[in-house]
Amino acid sequence: MIKKISIIGSGNVATQLSLAFANANIRVKQIISRNKNSGQLLAKKLNTQFIYNIKNISSTDLLIICVNDDNIDSLVKSLPNIPMVHTSGSTDINIFKKKDHFGVLYPIQSLNKDVVADFKKIPICVEANNQDFESKIIDLSSKISKKVFLLNSKERKNIHLSAVIASNFSNFCYLIAKKNLEYHNLDFSLLKPLILKTAQKIITKDPRLTQTGPAKRGDLKIIKEHLTILKDENYKKIYKLLSRNILKEYEK
Amino acid sequence: MIKKISIIGSGNVATQLSLAFANANIRVKQIISRNKNSGQLLAKKLNTQFIYNIKNISSTDLLIICVNDDNIDSLVKSLPNIPMVHTSGSTDINIFKKKDHFGVLYPIQSLNKDVVADFKKIPICVEANNQDFESKIIDLSSKISKKVFLLNSKERKNIHLSAVIASNFSNFCYLIAKKNLEYHNLDFSLLKPLILKTAQKIITKDPRLTQTGPAKRGDLKIIKEHLTILKDENYKKIYKLLSRNILKEYEK
Repeated sequence: MIKKISIIGSGNVATQLSLAFANANIRVKQIISRNKNSGQLLAKKLNTQFIYNIKNISSTDLLIICVNDDNIDSLVKSLPNIPMVHTSGSTDINIFKKKDHFGVLYPIQSLNKDVVADFKKIPICVEANNQDFESKIIDLSSKISKKVFLLNSKERKNIHLSAVIASNFSNFCYLIAKKNLEYHNLDFSLLKPLILKTAQKIITKDPRLTQTGPAKRGDLKIIKEHLTILKDENYKKIYKLLSRNILKEYEK
Repeated sequence: MIKKISIIGSGNVATQLSLAFANANIRVKQIISRNKNSGQLLAKKLNTQFIYNIKNISSTDLLIICVNDDNIDSLVKSLPNIPMVHTSGSTDINIFKKKDHFGVLYPIQSLNKDVVADFKKIPICVEANNQDFESKIIDLSSKISKKVFLLNSKERKNIHLSAVIASNFSNFCYLIAKKNLEYHNLDFSLLKPLILKTAQKIITKDPRLTQTGPAKRGDLKIIKEHLTILKDENYKKIYKLLSRNILKEYEK
Protein backbone atom coordinates (compact mmCIF):
# COMPACT_ATOMS: atom_id res chain seq x y z
CA MET A 1 0.00 0.00 0.00
CA ILE A 2 1.19 3.48 -0.82
CA LYS A 3 1.50 5.52 2.35
CA LYS A 4 3.93 8.24 1.40
CA ILE A 5 4.34 10.07 -1.89
CA SER A 6 6.51 12.84 -3.31
CA ILE A 7 5.36 15.29 -5.93
CA ILE A 8 7.47 16.66 -8.78
CA GLY A 9 6.14 20.01 -9.88
CA SER A 10 4.43 22.91 -8.14
CA GLY A 11 1.90 24.05 -10.73
CA ASN A 12 -1.84 23.53 -11.01
CA VAL A 13 -1.92 19.72 -11.00
CA ALA A 14 0.88 19.34 -8.42
CA THR A 15 -0.84 21.75 -6.04
CA GLN A 16 -4.34 20.28 -6.19
CA LEU A 17 -3.22 16.63 -6.22
CA SER A 18 -0.83 17.03 -3.29
CA LEU A 19 -3.45 18.88 -1.24
CA ALA A 20 -6.04 16.21 -2.01
CA PHE A 21 -3.70 13.37 -1.01
CA ALA A 22 -2.60 15.18 2.15
CA ASN A 23 -6.27 15.60 3.08
CA ALA A 24 -6.73 11.87 2.52
CA ASN A 25 -3.97 11.19 5.07
CA ILE A 26 -1.33 10.24 2.51
CA ARG A 27 1.98 11.67 3.64
CA VAL A 28 3.52 14.04 1.09
CA LYS A 29 7.23 13.61 1.85
CA GLN A 30 8.85 16.03 -0.59
CA ILE A 31 7.87 18.67 -3.13
CA ILE A 32 10.44 18.73 -5.93
CA SER A 33 10.30 21.76 -8.22
CA ARG A 34 12.50 23.87 -10.47
CA ASN A 35 10.39 26.85 -9.50
CA LYS A 36 11.70 27.81 -6.06
CA ASN A 37 8.92 30.29 -5.29
CA SER A 38 5.93 28.11 -6.04
CA GLY A 39 7.73 24.97 -4.81
CA GLN A 40 8.53 26.46 -1.42
CA LEU A 41 5.03 27.89 -1.17
CA LEU A 42 3.43 24.52 -1.85
CA ALA A 43 5.81 22.69 0.54
CA LYS A 44 4.91 25.24 3.23
CA LYS A 45 1.21 24.71 2.63
CA LEU A 46 1.74 20.98 3.10
CA ASN A 47 4.16 21.44 5.97
CA THR A 48 6.70 19.31 4.13
CA GLN A 49 10.20 19.47 2.62
CA PHE A 50 11.00 21.44 -0.54
CA ILE A 51 13.68 20.03 -2.86
CA TYR A 52 15.22 21.91 -5.77
CA ASN A 53 17.83 19.38 -6.86
CA ILE A 54 16.55 16.03 -8.14
CA LYS A 55 19.61 14.36 -6.60
CA ASN A 56 18.16 15.03 -3.15
CA ILE A 57 15.01 12.99 -3.74
CA SER A 58 14.73 10.52 -0.88
CA SER A 59 13.06 7.13 -0.98
CA THR A 60 9.26 7.15 -1.07
CA ASP A 61 6.41 4.80 -2.05
CA LEU A 62 5.55 6.82 -5.16
CA LEU A 63 6.77 9.76 -7.18
CA ILE A 64 3.96 11.68 -8.87
CA ILE A 65 5.21 13.64 -11.86
CA CYS A 66 3.15 16.79 -12.45
CA VAL A 67 5.27 18.71 -14.96
CA ASN A 68 4.54 19.92 -18.50
CA ASP A 69 4.19 17.10 -21.04
CA ASP A 70 7.27 18.28 -22.92
CA ASN A 71 9.48 17.91 -19.85
CA ILE A 72 8.44 14.42 -18.74
CA ASP A 73 10.85 12.52 -20.98
CA SER A 74 14.08 14.23 -19.93
CA LEU A 75 12.96 14.34 -16.29
CA VAL A 76 12.24 10.60 -16.16
CA LYS A 77 15.71 9.81 -17.51
CA SER A 78 17.31 11.63 -14.60
CA LEU A 79 15.12 10.13 -11.88
CA PRO A 80 16.16 7.27 -9.57
CA ASN A 81 14.35 3.94 -9.96
CA ILE A 82 11.53 4.74 -7.53
CA PRO A 83 7.94 3.68 -8.45
CA MET A 84 6.49 6.60 -10.40
CA VAL A 85 3.46 7.85 -12.34
CA HIS A 86 2.87 10.83 -14.58
CA THR A 87 -0.41 12.76 -14.66
CA SER A 88 -0.60 13.59 -18.36
CA GLY A 89 -3.56 12.78 -20.60
CA SER A 90 -1.57 12.57 -23.78
CA THR A 91 1.75 11.04 -22.74
CA ASP A 92 2.27 7.34 -23.41
CA ILE A 93 3.10 5.01 -20.53
CA ASN A 94 6.14 3.81 -22.50
CA ILE A 95 7.94 7.05 -21.74
CA PHE A 96 9.10 5.27 -18.55
CA LYS A 97 10.41 2.14 -20.26
CA LYS A 98 13.62 1.64 -18.26
CA LYS A 99 12.02 1.80 -14.79
CA ASP A 100 10.69 -1.12 -12.76
CA HIS A 101 7.31 0.16 -11.58
CA PHE A 102 5.60 2.90 -13.50
CA GLY A 103 2.20 4.11 -14.54
CA VAL A 104 -0.23 6.93 -15.09
CA LEU A 105 -2.67 8.75 -12.82
CA TYR A 106 -4.58 11.18 -15.03
CA PRO A 107 -7.39 13.26 -13.48
CA ILE A 108 -9.89 14.38 -16.15
CA GLN A 109 -10.21 17.96 -15.01
CA SER A 110 -8.64 21.28 -15.76
CA LEU A 111 -7.10 22.10 -12.38
CA ASN A 112 -6.14 25.49 -11.03
CA LYS A 113 -3.59 26.24 -8.35
CA ASP A 114 -5.87 28.71 -6.62
CA VAL A 115 -9.15 26.82 -6.79
CA VAL A 116 -9.56 23.85 -4.45
CA ALA A 117 -10.61 20.84 -6.54
CA ASP A 118 -13.23 18.41 -5.32
CA PHE A 119 -11.59 15.19 -6.53
CA LYS A 120 -14.47 13.01 -5.35
CA LYS A 121 -16.31 13.74 -8.58
CA ILE A 122 -13.25 13.92 -10.84
CA PRO A 123 -12.67 10.76 -12.91
CA ILE A 124 -9.09 9.46 -12.60
CA CYS A 125 -7.65 7.27 -15.38
CA VAL A 126 -5.11 4.75 -14.14
CA GLU A 127 -2.58 2.65 -16.07
CA ALA A 128 0.43 0.67 -14.82
CA ASN A 129 3.12 -1.66 -16.15
CA ASN A 130 2.30 -4.55 -13.80
CA GLN A 131 -0.74 -5.76 -11.92
CA ASP A 132 0.64 -5.35 -8.43
CA PHE A 133 1.57 -1.72 -9.04
CA GLU A 134 -1.73 -1.17 -10.85
CA SER A 135 -3.65 -2.28 -7.74
CA LYS A 136 -1.63 0.10 -5.62
CA ILE A 137 -2.35 3.06 -7.93
CA ILE A 138 -6.04 2.21 -8.05
CA ASP A 139 -6.11 1.95 -4.26
CA LEU A 140 -4.33 5.30 -3.89
CA SER A 141 -6.55 7.06 -6.44
CA SER A 142 -9.67 5.70 -4.75
CA LYS A 143 -8.70 7.60 -1.62
CA ILE A 144 -9.46 10.88 -3.35
CA SER A 145 -11.87 9.98 -6.17
CA LYS A 146 -14.96 7.81 -6.40
CA LYS A 147 -14.46 7.43 -10.15
CA VAL A 148 -11.27 5.51 -10.86
CA PHE A 149 -10.97 3.86 -14.28
CA LEU A 150 -8.37 1.52 -15.73
CA LEU A 151 -7.54 2.72 -19.24
CA ASN A 152 -4.68 2.09 -21.61
CA SER A 153 -2.60 4.83 -23.24
CA LYS A 154 -4.59 4.82 -26.49
CA GLU A 155 -7.88 5.17 -24.63
CA ARG A 156 -6.46 7.89 -22.41
CA LYS A 157 -5.20 9.83 -25.43
CA ASN A 158 -8.68 9.73 -26.96
CA ILE A 159 -10.16 10.97 -23.72
CA HIS A 160 -7.65 13.80 -23.68
CA LEU A 161 -8.43 14.68 -27.31
CA SER A 162 -12.15 14.66 -26.54
CA ALA A 163 -11.56 16.77 -23.44
CA VAL A 164 -9.75 19.35 -25.56
CA ILE A 165 -12.72 19.50 -27.94
CA ALA A 166 -15.39 19.57 -25.23
CA SER A 167 -13.64 21.87 -22.79
CA ASN A 168 -10.92 23.98 -24.44
CA PHE A 169 -12.91 24.61 -27.61
CA SER A 170 -16.11 25.49 -25.79
CA ASN A 171 -14.14 27.88 -23.57
CA PHE A 172 -12.81 29.50 -26.74
CA CYS A 173 -16.38 29.86 -28.01
CA TYR A 174 -17.20 31.70 -24.76
CA LEU A 175 -14.23 33.97 -25.45
CA ILE A 176 -15.33 34.76 -29.03
CA ALA A 177 -18.84 35.53 -27.75
CA LYS A 178 -17.43 37.82 -25.07
CA LYS A 179 -15.26 39.68 -27.59
CA ASN A 180 -18.19 40.17 -29.95
CA LEU A 181 -20.36 41.51 -27.14
CA GLU A 182 -17.65 43.85 -25.88
CA TYR A 183 -17.13 45.18 -29.41
CA HIS A 184 -20.73 46.35 -29.20
CA ASN A 185 -20.45 47.55 -25.58
CA LEU A 186 -22.63 44.71 -24.35
CA ASP A 187 -22.08 42.84 -21.11
CA PHE A 188 -20.88 39.22 -21.32
CA SER A 189 -22.80 38.49 -18.09
CA LEU A 190 -25.97 38.42 -20.19
CA LEU A 191 -24.86 35.05 -21.59
CA LYS A 192 -23.72 33.42 -18.35
CA PRO A 193 -27.02 31.72 -17.39
CA LEU A 194 -27.30 30.34 -20.93
CA ILE A 195 -23.73 29.02 -20.95
CA LEU A 196 -24.22 27.32 -17.59
CA LYS A 197 -27.54 25.80 -18.65
CA THR A 198 -26.05 24.50 -21.90
CA ALA A 199 -23.41 22.60 -19.95
CA GLN A 200 -25.82 21.40 -17.24
CA LYS A 201 -28.16 19.93 -19.85
CA ILE A 202 -25.66 17.33 -21.07
CA ILE A 203 -25.29 15.89 -17.56
CA THR A 204 -28.63 14.15 -18.05
CA LYS A 205 -29.25 14.45 -21.79
CA ASP A 206 -27.45 13.38 -24.98
CA PRO A 207 -25.81 16.48 -26.57
CA ARG A 208 -27.33 15.34 -29.86
CA LEU A 209 -30.75 16.06 -28.33
CA THR A 210 -29.83 19.32 -26.61
CA GLN A 211 -28.52 21.01 -29.78
CA THR A 212 -30.50 24.17 -30.58
CA GLY A 213 -29.97 27.24 -32.75
CA PRO A 214 -30.27 28.36 -36.38
CA ALA A 215 -27.98 25.67 -37.86
CA LYS A 216 -29.84 22.92 -36.02
CA ARG A 217 -33.16 24.31 -37.37
CA GLY A 218 -31.70 24.74 -40.87
CA ASP A 219 -32.41 28.47 -40.67
CA LEU A 220 -30.10 29.72 -43.44
CA LYS A 221 -31.52 33.24 -43.31
CA ILE A 222 -30.31 33.82 -39.74
CA ILE A 223 -26.95 32.17 -40.47
CA LYS A 224 -26.46 34.53 -43.40
CA GLU A 225 -27.41 37.54 -41.28
CA HIS A 226 -25.02 36.47 -38.47
CA LEU A 227 -22.20 36.22 -40.99
CA THR A 228 -22.97 39.80 -42.04
CA ILE A 229 -22.91 41.26 -38.54
CA LEU A 230 -19.89 39.24 -37.31
CA LYS A 231 -16.93 41.49 -38.13
CA ASP A 232 -13.82 39.37 -37.45
CA GLU A 233 -12.82 37.34 -40.53
CA ASN A 234 -11.40 34.46 -38.48
CA TYR A 235 -14.50 34.16 -36.32
CA LYS A 236 -16.61 34.26 -39.49
CA LYS A 237 -14.69 31.17 -40.68
CA ILE A 238 -15.35 29.41 -37.36
CA TYR A 239 -19.04 30.34 -37.49
CA LYS A 240 -19.29 29.02 -41.08
CA LEU A 241 -17.46 25.75 -40.45
CA LEU A 242 -19.35 24.88 -37.26
CA SER A 243 -22.72 25.84 -38.76
CA ARG A 244 -22.00 23.76 -41.86
CA ASN A 245 -21.22 20.74 -39.67
CA ILE A 246 -24.32 21.22 -37.50
CA LEU A 247 -26.48 21.57 -40.65
CA LYS A 248 -24.97 18.33 -41.95
CA GLU A 249 -25.46 16.51 -38.63
CA TYR A 250 -29.17 17.38 -38.54
CA GLU A 251 -30.12 17.40 -42.24
CA LYS A 252 -33.30 15.46 -42.82
CA MET B 1 -50.41 47.79 -16.52
CA ILE B 2 -50.60 44.48 -18.31
CA LYS B 3 -52.89 42.12 -16.43
CA LYS B 4 -53.94 39.64 -19.07
CA ILE B 5 -51.96 38.22 -21.96
CA SER B 6 -52.49 35.75 -24.78
CA ILE B 7 -49.78 33.54 -26.21
CA ILE B 8 -49.36 32.62 -29.87
CA GLY B 9 -47.52 29.34 -30.15
CA SER B 10 -47.31 26.20 -28.08
CA GLY B 11 -43.66 25.21 -28.40
CA ASN B 12 -40.73 25.58 -26.00
CA VAL B 13 -40.83 29.36 -25.51
CA ALA B 14 -44.64 29.57 -25.46
CA THR B 15 -44.88 26.83 -22.85
CA GLN B 16 -42.27 28.13 -20.44
CA LEU B 17 -43.21 31.82 -20.79
CA SER B 18 -46.93 31.21 -20.31
CA LEU B 19 -46.30 29.01 -17.27
CA ALA B 20 -43.98 31.62 -15.77
CA PHE B 21 -46.49 34.44 -16.28
CA ALA B 22 -49.35 32.36 -14.93
CA ASN B 23 -47.27 31.65 -11.82
CA ALA B 24 -46.70 35.38 -11.48
CA ASN B 25 -50.48 35.92 -11.42
CA ILE B 26 -50.73 37.27 -14.94
CA ARG B 27 -53.87 35.90 -16.53
CA VAL B 28 -53.22 33.89 -19.70
CA LYS B 29 -56.47 34.47 -21.60
CA GLN B 30 -55.92 32.40 -24.75
CA ILE B 31 -53.41 30.01 -26.24
CA ILE B 32 -53.41 30.40 -30.02
CA SER B 33 -51.65 27.65 -31.96
CA ARG B 34 -51.68 25.93 -35.34
CA ASN B 35 -50.66 22.74 -33.54
CA LYS B 36 -53.90 21.47 -32.04
CA ASN B 37 -52.28 18.80 -29.88
CA SER B 38 -49.66 20.89 -28.16
CA GLY B 39 -51.93 23.95 -28.13
CA GLN B 40 -54.73 22.14 -26.35
CA LEU B 41 -52.27 20.51 -23.98
CA LEU B 42 -50.77 23.85 -22.99
CA ALA B 43 -54.20 25.51 -22.64
CA LYS B 44 -55.25 22.65 -20.38
CA LYS B 45 -52.14 23.04 -18.24
CA LEU B 46 -52.98 26.72 -17.82
CA ASN B 47 -56.69 26.08 -17.43
CA THR B 48 -57.41 28.51 -20.23
CA GLN B 49 -58.95 28.70 -23.70
CA PHE B 50 -57.35 27.16 -26.78
CA ILE B 51 -57.82 28.95 -30.11
CA TYR B 52 -56.90 27.48 -33.50
CA ASN B 53 -58.21 30.24 -35.75
CA ILE B 54 -56.55 33.65 -35.44
CA LYS B 55 -59.90 35.29 -36.18
CA ASN B 56 -61.13 34.17 -32.77
CA ILE B 57 -58.49 36.07 -30.83
CA SER B 58 -60.29 38.20 -28.27
CA SER B 59 -59.11 41.49 -26.81
CA THR B 60 -56.26 41.28 -24.33
CA ASP B 61 -53.57 43.58 -22.87
CA LEU B 62 -50.77 41.88 -24.79
CA LEU B 63 -50.19 39.25 -27.44
CA ILE B 64 -46.91 37.38 -26.99
CA ILE B 65 -45.75 35.83 -30.24
CA CYS B 66 -43.71 32.68 -29.65
CA VAL B 67 -43.49 31.15 -33.14
CA ASN B 68 -40.54 30.33 -35.38
CA ASP B 69 -38.67 33.40 -36.66
CA ASP B 70 -39.64 32.58 -40.24
CA ASN B 71 -43.35 32.71 -39.45
CA ILE B 72 -43.46 35.99 -37.53
CA ASP B 73 -43.81 38.25 -40.57
CA SER B 74 -46.82 36.60 -42.17
CA LEU B 75 -48.44 36.03 -38.77
CA VAL B 76 -48.15 39.70 -37.76
CA LYS B 77 -49.85 40.80 -40.99
CA SER B 78 -52.91 38.75 -40.17
CA LEU B 79 -53.19 39.82 -36.51
CA PRO B 80 -55.63 42.47 -35.20
CA ASN B 81 -54.15 45.72 -33.87
CA ILE B 82 -53.67 44.51 -30.30
CA PRO B 83 -50.46 45.48 -28.43
CA MET B 84 -47.94 42.73 -29.22
CA VAL B 85 -44.37 41.56 -28.74
CA HIS B 86 -42.31 38.82 -30.32
CA THR B 87 -39.74 36.76 -28.40
CA SER B 88 -37.08 36.33 -31.05
CA GLY B 89 -33.42 37.25 -30.61
CA SER B 90 -32.76 37.90 -34.25
CA THR B 91 -35.97 39.47 -35.55
CA ASP B 92 -36.05 43.25 -35.97
CA ILE B 93 -38.70 45.28 -34.14
CA ASN B 94 -39.67 46.84 -37.50
CA ILE B 95 -41.37 43.62 -38.52
CA PHE B 96 -44.44 45.10 -36.76
CA LYS B 97 -44.38 48.44 -38.55
CA LYS B 98 -48.13 48.91 -39.20
CA LYS B 99 -49.28 48.28 -35.60
CA ASP B 100 -49.76 50.89 -32.86
CA HIS B 101 -48.01 49.30 -29.88
CA PHE B 102 -45.35 46.71 -30.45
CA GLY B 103 -42.09 45.45 -29.06
CA VAL B 104 -39.82 42.59 -28.15
CA LEU B 105 -39.49 40.41 -25.06
CA TYR B 106 -36.49 38.15 -25.67
CA PRO B 107 -35.39 35.78 -22.89
CA ILE B 108 -31.69 34.84 -23.28
CA GLN B 109 -32.08 31.15 -22.65
CA SER B 110 -32.60 28.01 -24.64
CA LEU B 111 -35.98 26.88 -23.32
CA ASN B 112 -37.47 23.43 -23.37
CA LYS B 113 -41.14 22.51 -23.23
CA ASP B 114 -40.53 19.75 -20.70
CA VAL B 115 -38.07 21.47 -18.38
CA VAL B 116 -39.45 24.14 -16.07
CA ALA B 117 -37.38 27.31 -16.53
CA ASP B 118 -36.37 29.46 -13.58
CA PHE B 119 -36.89 32.86 -15.20
CA LYS B 120 -35.66 34.77 -12.14
CA LYS B 121 -32.09 34.31 -13.35
CA ILE B 122 -32.81 34.54 -17.09
CA PRO B 123 -31.97 37.93 -18.62
CA ILE B 124 -34.86 39.36 -20.66
CA CYS B 125 -34.16 41.91 -23.41
CA VAL B 126 -36.96 44.41 -23.93
CA GLU B 127 -37.61 46.82 -26.79
CA ALA B 128 -40.75 48.80 -27.68
CA ASN B 129 -41.91 51.40 -30.19
CA ASN B 130 -43.00 53.96 -27.58
CA GLN B 131 -42.09 54.82 -24.03
CA ASP B 132 -45.44 54.07 -22.47
CA PHE B 133 -45.57 50.59 -23.95
CA GLU B 134 -41.88 50.07 -23.11
CA SER B 135 -42.61 50.73 -19.42
CA LYS B 136 -45.44 48.23 -19.52
CA ILE B 137 -43.24 45.52 -21.05
CA ILE B 138 -40.46 46.19 -18.56
CA ASP B 139 -42.97 46.01 -15.72
CA LEU B 140 -44.40 42.76 -17.03
CA SER B 141 -40.98 41.16 -17.59
CA SER B 142 -39.87 42.18 -14.11
CA LYS B 143 -42.63 40.01 -12.70
CA ILE B 144 -40.78 36.90 -13.82
CA SER B 145 -37.11 37.99 -14.15
CA LYS B 146 -34.78 40.03 -11.99
CA LYS B 147 -32.65 40.83 -15.03
CA VAL B 148 -34.59 42.97 -17.48
CA PHE B 149 -32.58 45.03 -19.97
CA LEU B 150 -33.62 47.63 -22.51
CA LEU B 151 -31.81 46.88 -25.77
CA ASN B 152 -32.35 47.92 -29.36
CA SER B 153 -32.67 45.46 -32.26
CA LYS B 154 -29.02 45.75 -33.31
CA GLU B 155 -27.84 45.02 -29.77
CA ARG B 156 -30.26 42.14 -29.42
CA LYS B 157 -29.08 40.61 -32.70
CA ASN B 158 -25.50 40.73 -31.46
CA ILE B 159 -26.53 39.05 -28.24
CA HIS B 160 -28.29 36.35 -30.22
CA LEU B 161 -25.24 35.86 -32.46
CA SER B 162 -23.00 35.62 -29.38
CA ALA B 163 -25.44 33.19 -27.76
CA VAL B 164 -25.24 30.95 -30.83
CA ILE B 165 -21.43 30.93 -30.58
CA ALA B 166 -21.27 30.44 -26.81
CA SER B 167 -24.11 27.96 -26.46
CA ASN B 168 -24.92 26.18 -29.75
CA PHE B 169 -21.30 25.82 -30.79
CA SER B 170 -20.12 24.59 -27.40
CA ASN B 171 -22.97 22.05 -27.38
CA PHE B 172 -21.75 20.86 -30.77
CA CYS B 173 -18.23 20.50 -29.35
CA TYR B 174 -19.73 18.26 -26.63
CA LEU B 175 -21.35 16.21 -29.39
CA ILE B 176 -18.10 15.81 -31.36
CA ALA B 177 -16.33 14.74 -28.15
CA LYS B 178 -19.08 12.22 -27.41
CA LYS B 179 -18.89 10.76 -30.90
CA ASN B 180 -15.13 10.42 -30.72
CA LEU B 181 -15.36 8.67 -27.35
CA GLU B 182 -18.09 6.33 -28.52
CA TYR B 183 -16.06 5.45 -31.59
CA HIS B 184 -13.46 4.09 -29.15
CA ASN B 185 -16.06 2.50 -26.82
CA LEU B 186 -15.41 5.07 -24.14
CA ASP B 187 -18.09 6.59 -21.94
CA PHE B 188 -19.00 10.26 -22.48
CA SER B 189 -19.77 10.52 -18.75
CA LEU B 190 -16.03 10.70 -18.14
CA LEU B 191 -16.06 14.25 -19.53
CA LYS B 192 -19.15 15.55 -17.75
CA PRO B 193 -17.44 16.98 -14.63
CA LEU B 194 -14.91 18.74 -16.87
CA ILE B 195 -17.60 20.22 -19.14
CA LEU B 196 -19.57 21.50 -16.17
CA LYS B 197 -16.46 22.99 -14.53
CA THR B 198 -15.44 24.71 -17.76
CA ALA B 199 -18.79 26.49 -17.90
CA GLN B 200 -18.88 27.27 -14.17
CA LYS B 201 -15.47 28.92 -14.32
CA ILE B 202 -16.59 31.75 -16.61
CA ILE B 203 -19.29 32.79 -14.12
CA THR B 204 -16.58 34.43 -12.03
CA LYS B 205 -13.60 34.53 -14.39
CA ASP B 206 -12.83 36.03 -17.81
CA PRO B 207 -12.82 33.20 -20.42
CA ARG B 208 -9.55 34.64 -21.69
CA LEU B 209 -8.01 33.61 -18.35
CA THR B 210 -9.71 30.22 -18.08
CA GLN B 211 -8.46 28.97 -21.46
CA THR B 212 -6.32 25.83 -21.08
CA GLY B 213 -5.11 23.06 -23.38
CA PRO B 214 -2.41 22.34 -25.95
CA ALA B 215 -3.25 25.28 -28.27
CA LYS B 216 -3.22 27.73 -25.36
CA ARG B 217 0.21 26.38 -24.29
CA GLY B 218 1.48 26.41 -27.88
CA ASP B 219 2.06 22.65 -27.66
CA LEU B 220 2.27 21.83 -31.40
CA LYS B 221 3.40 18.26 -30.73
CA ILE B 222 0.12 17.33 -29.01
CA ILE B 223 -1.96 19.19 -31.61
CA LYS B 224 -0.24 17.18 -34.34
CA GLU B 225 -0.83 13.92 -32.49
CA HIS B 226 -4.51 14.78 -31.92
CA LEU B 227 -4.92 15.42 -35.65
CA THR B 228 -3.49 11.96 -36.30
CA ILE B 229 -5.82 10.11 -33.93
CA LEU B 230 -8.97 12.09 -34.85
CA LYS B 231 -10.51 10.10 -37.69
CA ASP B 232 -13.36 12.24 -39.05
CA GLU B 233 -12.13 14.66 -41.73
CA ASN B 234 -14.68 17.35 -40.88
CA TYR B 235 -13.85 17.26 -37.17
CA LYS B 236 -10.16 17.45 -38.09
CA LYS B 237 -10.92 20.72 -39.90
CA ILE B 238 -12.75 22.06 -36.83
CA TYR B 239 -9.87 20.99 -34.55
CA LYS B 240 -7.34 22.70 -36.84
CA LEU B 241 -9.27 25.94 -37.26
CA LEU B 242 -10.05 26.37 -33.56
CA SER B 243 -6.50 25.46 -32.49
CA ARG B 244 -5.05 27.90 -35.01
CA ASN B 245 -7.24 30.66 -33.59
CA ILE B 246 -6.38 29.82 -29.97
CA LEU B 247 -2.67 29.74 -30.84
CA LYS B 248 -3.04 33.17 -32.46
CA GLU B 249 -4.98 34.56 -29.49
CA TYR B 250 -2.26 33.53 -27.04
CA GLU B 251 0.91 33.89 -29.12
CA LYS B 252 3.55 35.76 -27.17
